[in-house]
Amino acid sequence: MVVKSIRWGILGTGKICQDFASAVGATDGAELYGVAARDFTKAQDFAKNFNVTHAYESYEALAESDVDVVYVGTWHTLHEAHVMLCFSKGKNVVVEKPMAVNAAQARRMVAAARRRGLFLMEAHWTRFMPAVKEAVRAVEANEIGEIVAVLSDFGYLFGGEKAHMNQFRPEMAGGALLEIGCYPISAAFHFLSSVSGLGPPVTVVASGTTELGVDVSAGVVLKFPRGRVATLGYSYLGELPEQTTIIGSRGRIVLHNPGHCPTKVSIVTLAGQRNEYQTETKEYPLPKLEGTLNCPNSEGLVYECAAVGNLLRAGKKESDVVPLDESVHMAEVMDSVRHQVGVVYPADGLLSRMSAGRPWLQPTALGIFLLLTGAAAGAVLKRR
Amino acid sequence: MVVKSIRWGILGTGKICQDFASAVGATDGAELYGVAARDFTKAQDFAKNFNVTHAYESYEALAESDVDVVYVGTWHTLHEAHVMLCFSKGKNVVVEKPMAVNAAQARRMVAAARRRGLFLMEAHWTRFMPAVKEAVRAVEANEIGEIVAVLSDFGYLFGGEKAHMNQFRPEMAGGALLEIGCYPISAAFHFLSSVSGLGPPVTVVASGTTELGVDVSAGVVLKFPRGRVATLGYSYLGELPEQTTIIGSRGRIVLHNPGHCPTKVSIVTLAGQRNEYQTETKEYPLPKLEGTLNCPNSEGLVYECAAVGNLLRAGKKESDVVPLDESVHMAEVMDSVRHQVGVVYPADGLLSRMSAGRPWLQPTALGIFLLLTGAAAGAVLKRR
Repeated sequence: MVVKSIRWGILGTGKICQDFASAVGATDGAELYGVAARDFTKAQDFAKNFNVTHAYESYEALAESDVDVVYVGTWHTLHEAHVMLCFSKGKNVVVEKPMAVNAAQARRMVAAARRRGLFLMEAHWTRFMPAVKEAVRAVEANEIGEIVAVLSDFGYLFGGEKAHMNQFRPEMAGGALLEIGCYPISAAFHFLSSVSGLGPPVTVVASGTTELGVDVSAGVVLKFPRGRVATLGYSYLGELPEQTTIIGSRGRIVLHNPGHCPTKVSIVTLAGQRNEYQTETKEYPLPKLEGTLNCPNSEGLVYECAAVGNLLRAGKKESDVVPLDESVHMAEVMDSVRHQVGVVYPADGLLSRMSAGRPWLQPTALGIFLLLTGAAAGAVLKRR
Repeated sequence: MVVKSIRWGILGTGKICQDFASAVGATDGAELYGVAARDFTKAQDFAKNFNVTHAYESYEALAESDVDVVYVGTWHTLHEAHVMLCFSKGKNVVVEKPMAVNAAQARRMVAAARRRGLFLMEAHWTRFMPAVKEAVRAVEANEIGEIVAVLSDFGYLFGGEKAHMNQFRPEMAGGALLEIGCYPISAAFHFLSSVSGLGPPVTVVASGTTELGVDVSAGVVLKFPRGRVATLGYSYLGELPEQTTIIGSRGRIVLHNPGHCPTKVSIVTLAGQRNEYQTETKEYPLPKLEGTLNCPNSEGLVYECAAVGNLLRAGKKESDVVPLDESVHMAEVMDSVRHQVGVVYPADGLLSRMSAGRPWLQPTALGIFLLLTGAAAGAVLKRR
């Protein structure tokens, strides 16, 4: 049987686009069809370096080309515009995480994909790593009992000239949450919302700290239905353990450092008494890719790329590993975290801006509103 | 030089009292002078089993005896009464953690100790373990740079007949927070409040779940001054990794499982690039004790016992490893956590009971109060 080759377009030429192109180049049934940049020279250089068949001088030209699917790897403040551009030309899209700057954008993108019957997926590549799939298998095989909690973290020391980096600009939707905090949140959703079938969290609490108007470090607690709790941490201030632990009633699973793209998983099962464990550790070496990659373990992007190919060939419009509703829910959680930590972007609404960092303001405002309404109603009645 | 022997009294005969008596028996310069129980037969049996010189038929009789210091190891709802009893007879006290059911009790005990010039310490024995002292040494020697975050957790699967256990009775101040959640909170305070010199946290957020009216699982985020964040988890629903990680700007320190009484510490220092580490792991085997112990690593109680002996011989009224102000602050944090998770005890105040689980109620109530006060003042002024 001849497998239909998927023609990929790469929208953007930054570091993650480079790594993704390398991955497409190494994936069976995937073809590097086109690349586009705002600067045509950059697209031409990229095409030469990564053996991409066509270089386009605009994003629009790429969206109008014969690609089957576009990988949108631009800065996240541009995602909505670029995803919508691709949709307007009838193209399927994989969009880098975070899909959106806030939930309103995510909802618009998801609605557009569904309205047009196009494929859309947020690029949570972690979930396609074999170590993570092994964790899912073990959970589904009931090896650790029912999942009761998730602990996950991601952090590194941000060492650059902060004032000059997009990561530290509110107007660029900077901050550690959207860049790295999205990984622990995705891990919590993956195991507690999807795999456990519990759906989105019922409450979100967070506390953290800001620099130059963006979040640099925080802790997040998500409470899912049935009292399942995810305790998550992220930081630009130091190297966290970068580990995800899925706790079950009869054991736990550890996705080892680097937990945002792990190659090693331990399944720890209780063997009788407390503190008596049986540990089975499995390693999943990464495939070899040509050239130098920018990000750690980017070889693992081939798993995501292959999975998307299979979905497209099967005519699917959405991945059940990274469902679209979940992407919206994750964006909602990130809105709430930012709000509680006190970070607002120009793209956020007015009430968000007023009450960011003061999560009690909204209910207090509601209380005062109800009181005034009641008093006004009373006065009207009295006058009659 | 002859070291003055410290005469210990044990108030209570439960599991932790047994383990503490074994530790006193194995500590140089410590003497098992007396034990008291409500049931005299129990005190006599205990005295025989642990070679305690005197058995007393009441707690009062022990407090009136010639002991230098009393270890109060009764159930935590009784701590305040028993500590106060010892103080009334002029005795120094080490009180099991949690020192108190709530901050009001802790404040009263600390005030009484200071007023009477007596020694008081909450038994946070973790801090006296050599592995933890090594972590403190490494921090103070600046081996991991400035501390920026702490991650800590403790959880086990509570397997008993819940409905019949004190741990699941609000009137017995049950719940996982006071029994095991106090350990991650203590770890956060130890490294971020004391060792870093930052003082108590500025905000506390928590979310968790309850069963039978007590908390069974939660995540807690403490924000300390200078934006340092501690992300903590505890649970009765499954075995958590039971690990404490102290993250610095140039490395991290891991206190390995069982993190609430660790014997192994890893000092991980950055060696150039991200994800390039140098790890030094040190183990501190426990001393051998006679007989069977009830709790994991209870041999480590000898370190706490020896430290208290040194403090008493030096005429100190307080430990600078577990300062009294910190015990009060920890009790305040635990009050806040319970409040947010929705657990109230009969010993808590009315406002706590009204607003537990609704942390926005207090500011809303304040907002309405201020509004009404303003309206009333306006009306009075207008009438004039």
